[in-house]
Parts: sequence; C-alpha cells; structure tokens
Amino acid sequence: MTAADALIDDLCNLEPIKTWSLIVTLFGDLSDHHITGKELGLLMGHVGIKTEAIRVALHRLRKDGWIVSTKSGREVTYSLSDVGLAETRAAYEDVYRRDVKYPQGWKLLLTKSDYAAPDPAIRIERSLLLVPVEAVLLDGAALGLQADTDHIPDWFSDRIVPSQTLVLAQKLCEIAERPGIGDLSPLSLAAVRLLLLHYWRKIALRNSSWAHISMIPQGPLAQCHHRVTQVMADLPRLDPAAFAN
Amino acid sequence: MTAADALIDDLCNLEPIKTWSLIVTLFGDLSDHHITGKELGLLMGHVGIKTEAIRVALHRLRKDGWIVSTKSGREVTYSLSDVGLAETRAAYEDVYRRDVKYPQGWKLLLTKSDYAAPDPAIRIERSLLLVPVEAVLLDGAALGLQADTDHIPDWFSDRIVPSQTLVLAQKLCEIAERPGIGDLSPLSLAAVRLLLLHYWRKIALRNSSWAHISMIPQGPLAQCHHRVTQVMADLPRLDPAAFAN
Repeated sequence: MTAADALIDDLCNLEPIKTWSLIVTLFGDLSDHHITGKELGLLMGHVGIKTEAIRVALHRLRKDGWIVSTKSGREVTYSLSDVGLAETRAAYEDVYRRDVKYPQGWKLLLTKSDYAAPDPAIRIERSLLLVPVEAVLLDGAALGLQADTDHIPDWFSDRIVPSQTLVLAQKLCEIAERPGIGDLSPLSLAAVRLLLLHYWRKIALRNSSWAHISMIPQGPLAQCHHRVTQVMADLPRLDPAAFAN
Repeated sequence: MTAADALIDDLCNLEPIKTWSLIVTLFGDLSDHHITGKELGLLMGHVGIKTEAIRVALHRLRKDGWIVSTKSGREVTYSLSDVGLAETRAAYEDVYRRDVKYPQGWKLLLTKSDYAAPDPAIRIERSLLLVPVEAVLLDGAALGLQADTDHIPDWFSDRIVPSQTLVLAQKLCEIAERPGIGDLSPLSLAAVRLLLLHYWRKIALRNSSWAHISMIPQGPLAQCHHRVTQVMADLPRLDPAAFAN
C-alpha cells in the first residue's frame, strides 16, 4: 500500500460515509460547480465508492432538485441547481472560514421555563442555554453567565459536543497534519481534500461545534478547525481538469 | 397611640414572633449577658409578650442548656450558659457585621450530579449552586460561572431568597429609617432595638441572605443590612440598668 492509499484508507475508516453526502461535499468544493459522470466516477471510485451507489445517490439528489444533469452524446454533466448552489454557498461560508463563527463568543444563559431560545442556542440543561453573545437578549427572562474558560471540565465540553465528535476531530487533525499531502498525485490529492472536507463539513455545519471552538480554544475541535482550513487554503479546490487527466 | 407605641406595634406585626427566639436575640445583645426575671418581664411585656409565654420559653432554654439561672432571695437572674455564650458569639459576628460576609463575592457553579457541595452553598437548581468564591474548589467536577450582576432578573433573586424575606427586609428597613428613634424613652428604645435586631438576626443567619446582598447590592436585603446595622451601631446595646429604671 502506498502512502497515498494509506492516507485515503485512514480517512475512509474514520466514520461510515454516506455517498449522497460525499457528493454534496464534492459539488460544494468544485471550482466551477460542474463535473461529468466519468470524472465523478473516477474520484468517487478512488475513495472506494461503488458505481451503483453513485448512481443511486445522483438519482436522489436530482430528484430533490439539488443537482441538474445535461447530456451531450454519451457524456452526462452534473451541476448544482440554483437551489443547490444557494444552499451550498450559505453552508460553505462556515466550512471554509478560518476565523471563528460568532466572533463575540458564547455565553451561558440561565432561563425561565417559558424563555424563547434564540436560534443558534445550544441546550446544556433544561434551563441552561449556550448562546452566541450576538444573539443574547437580556429581557428579564434570562440571567447571563460568563464561564471560567480557564477551567472548563471535560464533562461540560461533552455537553456542548458529543465526545465521539471530539475523537473524530482529533483523528482528522492528525491525518491533516501528516507530511507529504502536497506531494500526492492529482487524483489522490483530490481524494484526500474531498475526504478531509467531508468530515470537517459535518462538524462545521453544527453551531455546537463553533461554541466548543470558542469556549475551548485549545480543544480538539479548535485544532482541527485550524489545521483542516489551513490545508484547504493551501490546496486548490477540486478541479476535474486537474485530477481526471 | 404614641409614636413609640406605633413603632413597636408595626415591628411586632411584621411577622409572628416566637418568644424563645426573641429571648435568644435579647441575651445575645445584653451588654453583660445577664438579666433578672423582673427586667426580662418588663422588656418582653413592653413588646406584648405574656408572662406565661416567657415562663415556658425560659424553661425550654434552660432545659436545652442554653441559659442558666441563679436565685438570690426572691430574685432570679438569668444568663447565657457557656454553650449559649459560645454559640451567640459565633452567630452575632454575622448579625452585627457592617461589611458583607464572604467579601470575595459569590459564584455560580454548574456541577456534576455527584458534586460534593461545600458548606455555605445555596442550591439554585438541581445542578446549579451559588457558592462564596472563598469556598469554590474547581476540581473538575464544577464549572465556575460569573453572573452579569448588572442584569439580575427578579425571578433569579427569588431563587436565592424567598420573596417574603425580601418584603420583610424592605419593611424592616423602612421602620429603621423612621426619624425619632433616638428620642424614645429607654424602655421603648430597648424594645425597638430588640425587635429590629430580632428580625434582622433571622435574615443575617442565613447564608442565602449574604449571597443576595453580595449579588444584588441595590436590593432590599442590602439596604436593610446597611440601615439596621447602622441603627445598631448608633444605639447602645441592651442594658437593664438603662431601661428598667
């Protein structure tokens, strides 16, 4: 097994991968948002996804109005629909961002039972919410609390984000730190980028992850954020013209 | 009804008074810790306590080892026992203090269910304690939280101290602020001092009161503390030689 295969293998083994979700990641990172069926099959095949699984996933995504396909002779080209493009753009702001979301940090709120929690709130306990400072409205129904961020115990960290996510982040960060990623073949490089981005995307789309990153800046999520977005910034976006030739 | 009678009447009507508890207050404030049965009856009678109730209370306190009595001819003199004196001294530090107890303030702790709460802790919710900073041990089982003291909602204040206590404190403070207390007859002055001290003592012996005073320094408990201890400092301690002649 080559170093590239080992890298891809380790990434594939981090967590079970849903094919449709991996394709969503792929389309979000494509430099010009479209890819032929052949190119898609090449890249997905390189990370071990079978042709039949790709076919089913593409069918589902097209049915959901998320991608569109055009046929030219025997070649099919897939691209994001307008809906898919709009959703991807919104989501990918969080996925690629190198700074932290909600830059003013997070606050705990002790609330009355009838408190209407603002949207990005994370429930820590029945009456205790974690809320971005920007979203805090101290209207008498909540008491704002500033946590001692120097001494955040592990069990509290686990209430923000499940420990399995923290383990995933740590492993992902370790893989992203391996030397030699820049020296891979274009196809392997694309596969590694796709997989790193896929796992990170799932983490970055949860507000709870950003709360953890803000409150525990030495923690595995913050380190993973730092490292994975660094790799993304250093490497070019997915480009079939680069990896399919 | 004279101004003195009205003052004493209003104090007596604040809350039901337990005779034995009022006698405990009285002994704690006596300048030399002993009083004759006749002097005791005079002062207690002036605040409306019946002879029979005094007799029962004295019997109970003597049986509990809290006071001792000595007889000289037809005159009985009561004084605190060694136990009573030691307990009174410890308690009265808090009752007469003009500064706040636990000067470093109070902190909220979010705790795990198996957290061993330190002694002066006040439970706000199942897993949320209010603890003096001096007593906080951040050993990994608790997360320290600093409350926004600028915006403490009323419902939170009520979780520290029941609202009926806050109402009592407010009324007590209003009475203590009335002009002319210094101009009362020695016996009425002693009665007013005894009653003010009695209600305040019940408040000051609860740690939750000190938490409230620290966290809500503009609140009714803090104002009551300020005013009542000011009156205590301005007036002489209870002295039968002064009020029984």
